[in-house]
Amino acid sequence: MSELRWHPLLGEWVATATQRQDRTFFPPEDYCPLCPTKPGKFPTEVPAATYDMVVFENKFPSLQRNPPPPGVEGTELEPVAPSRGECEVVVYTSDHHATLAGASVTRIEHLVHVWRDRTRALEARDDVVHVYPFENKGAAIGVTLSHPHGQIYAYPFVPPVVLREIERANAYRGATDRCLFCDVRDRERDDGRRIVAEEDGWLAYVPFFARYPYETHLVATRCVRALPDLDEREVRGLARILKRVLSGFDALFDLSFPYIMAVHQAPKTADPYHLHIEFYPPMRSATRLKYLAGSEAGAGMFINDTLAEEKAAELRGKIPALAAGEPGRAERR
Amino acid sequence: MSELRWHPLLGEWVATATQRQDRTFFPPEDYCPLCPTKPGKFPTEVPAATYDMVVFENKFPSLQRNPPPPGVEGTELEPVAPSRGECEVVVYTSDHHATLAGASVTRIEHLVHVWRDRTRALEARDDVVHVYPFENKGAAIGVTLSHPHGQIYAYPFVPPVVLREIERANAYRGATDRCLFCDVRDRERDDGRRIVAEEDGWLAYVPFFARYPYETHLVATRCVRALPDLDEREVRGLARILKRVLSGFDALFDLSFPYIMAVHQAPKTADPYHLHIEFYPPMRSATRLKYLAGSEAGAGMFINDTLAEEKAAELRGKIPALAAGEPGRAERR
Repeated sequence: MSELRWHPLLGEWVATATQRQDRTFFPPEDYCPLCPTKPGKFPTEVPAATYDMVVFENKFPSLQRNPPPPGVEGTELEPVAPSRGECEVVVYTSDHHATLAGASVTRIEHLVHVWRDRTRALEARDDVVHVYPFENKGAAIGVTLSHPHGQIYAYPFVPPVVLREIERANAYRGATDRCLFCDVRDRERDDGRRIVAEEDGWLAYVPFFARYPYETHLVATRCVRALPDLDEREVRGLARILKRVLSGFDALFDLSFPYIMAVHQAPKTADPYHLHIEFYPPMRSATRLKYLAGSEAGAGMFINDTLAEEKAAELRGKIPALAAGEPGRAERR
Repeated sequence: MSELRWHPLLGEWVATATQRQDRTFFPPEDYCPLCPTKPGKFPTEVPAATYDMVVFENKFPSLQRNPPPPGVEGTELEPVAPSRGECEVVVYTSDHHATLAGASVTRIEHLVHVWRDRTRALEARDDVVHVYPFENKGAAIGVTLSHPHGQIYAYPFVPPVVLREIERANAYRGATDRCLFCDVRDRERDDGRRIVAEEDGWLAYVPFFARYPYETHLVATRCVRALPDLDEREVRGLARILKRVLSGFDALFDLSFPYIMAVHQAPKTADPYHLHIEFYPPMRSATRLKYLAGSEAGAGMFINDTLAEEKAAELRGKIPALAAGEPGRAERR
């Protein structure tokens, strides 16, 4: 059973996807469904003895290309819709024990190319309005498979968070004729205290208004709307800044740092937008998690127990330069 | 350091409250700050040898009556404001090991009276716009003190979730001249499959559009805006339905069930609203938690791995009748 049900009190779609309840939950390594299929062994979801990086449809999707008809009837007040769209899995490497932070800049560049290609391919479909690459990392965030992977959702509507950003960007453009995201980024650059890294075409900072202690935004320097707008210099810069920020995360507490990575790009509409990536790490210290509890989930006011300025300084101090062998920055023109 | 920082991309206030980072974290029972102060022992936050129910200001507040001046300067793009308001703790009982589910209907009635009284008192302040009673229950939800207690936040603005409900209710009123909340409740009553309990003046159901597997709404039968509008029959009914729903939660998996309880009432504005209580339990089965991960936190689309109809039937089957000694339902007039 799978469908979209309309939440009339909040004005958003909720995906019902009962097949997900039985999804694979931390299988033993020999039964990892994301590993290559080894000759004579348990067949995984990847029918190949080896691979570099692989994208396939999620076996437990909340959105699908050919969804079943809704299992319940809607009303005018609470309509239902088929859960049309796509949920893809992006396996970063065949190495079960790797992480994105440990990947080479070249591999991360490859991942950005994959995001870009999948954005183009999925956006070409009439039923897709918004393409959203993301990663849930770590058991603290609810990940049920430890093999390094991300996901790409293709939504049949503009999802609520992106819609809200667009509403704000539209209002700001109307009032100032400027890009909201550019102005926020420029304010961070001018202030400087919350910047954690910079690479060709990208700036990384803990935003002034961070909702999570180590929330970090990677924002394109050029006013580009989406992944397909990036040139190769910017793709390389994104790979480099991702590698550095993720390495800094892992160095913070000397552990593989959990996070949500949300790639926010323009939907297939003409609205003003600006490509950026947001990281929401669930840790507020080496041993404590931040929970979204009564104030956040019930009322919508986030409480950040830390100062963005302090957390940025802490993270900045942990972000390494890249090893000499990594593909370098383009020379400044 | 404590202030409100404006999130220009989402259009909401974020509370920075660094003093909270060092708040008490699961102290040993002898050092519980919510227990009565026993003669010759460690002084708790309640300077009394015994008490029935007690309300006091949170020692680690994110909003306060006399906030310090903001520790950073804002800009037109990203203003800051003092974190004015109030954070109160409501200790339900002096019994460290009790839970609200185990409390008598009379005690829960008392709690509803406390919510009502505090709503009146806090709303009388010029700096308060919205009063929000809630409870975070269980370590799974991030609670750091196990002594049974809830909280009351008094916000200097209408918080985002309530604001969104008001926007939807306003639009619905404009289009139909009817109350959105009443129509959603009536649809649930007509359908019947998702109803879990009914008491004088209250209906409880897993809504059609549930975002969490055991999400349960308690909705006033009469179109009342806020707690102070309840008559004594409705207060009793609310206490009874709370007792029954909470007992059902605990019976589901034979454990003290974690949840967020969000009391949604009208702010001090003239907008249409309708008093209701929403429960967001974080469990999706006896052993699995639901996480707000990439789709929920990053894009805003909730995925519910269960069917509201099935979860309602499961919960309904666990909700007990009340013991003979409990204060009864009013006779129908």
